[in-house]
Amino acid sequence: MTTSTFQVTGMSCGHCENAIRDEVSQLSGVEDVQVSAADGRLVVTASAALPADEVIAAVDDAGYIAVTA
Amino acid sequence: MTTSTFQVTGMSCGHCENAIRDEVSQLSGVEDVQVSAADGRLVVTASAALPADEVIAAVDDAGYIAVTA
Repeated sequence: MTTSTFQVTGMSCGHCENAIRDEVSQLSGVEDVQVSAADGRLVVTASAALPADEVIAAVDDAGYIAVTA
Repeated sequence: MTTSTFQVTGMSCGHCENAIRDEVSQLSGVEDVQVSAADGRLVVTASAALPADEVIAAVDDAGYIAVTA
């Protein structure tokens, strides 16, 4: 189990959170996604090591920008 | 053809606009929906008179509050 934290810019509401959750949840091994528009925080828990690049790409697919935090 | 304008509070992004557009578009006779999160404006064009209450209820279903403008 591994947990990674990212800072995401541009989220403004629950729809934004859902868009990111939907994309990140599809990554292999992801077991939990916590995302908050209020503080721009994204916490991803996976069953194995999850490359940050994959998470950042998934967030990009949702239309937002993430950096490792 | 009738055009009605409403002021909507709480929209913050394009997802919010889409949520409102989806709901209002389902109303009978609606031919065009213009909605802007930036200025909170909703303009609905319908083929016949469209009661404001129906539009306000559709916006409520989407999770926002509209008043006639």
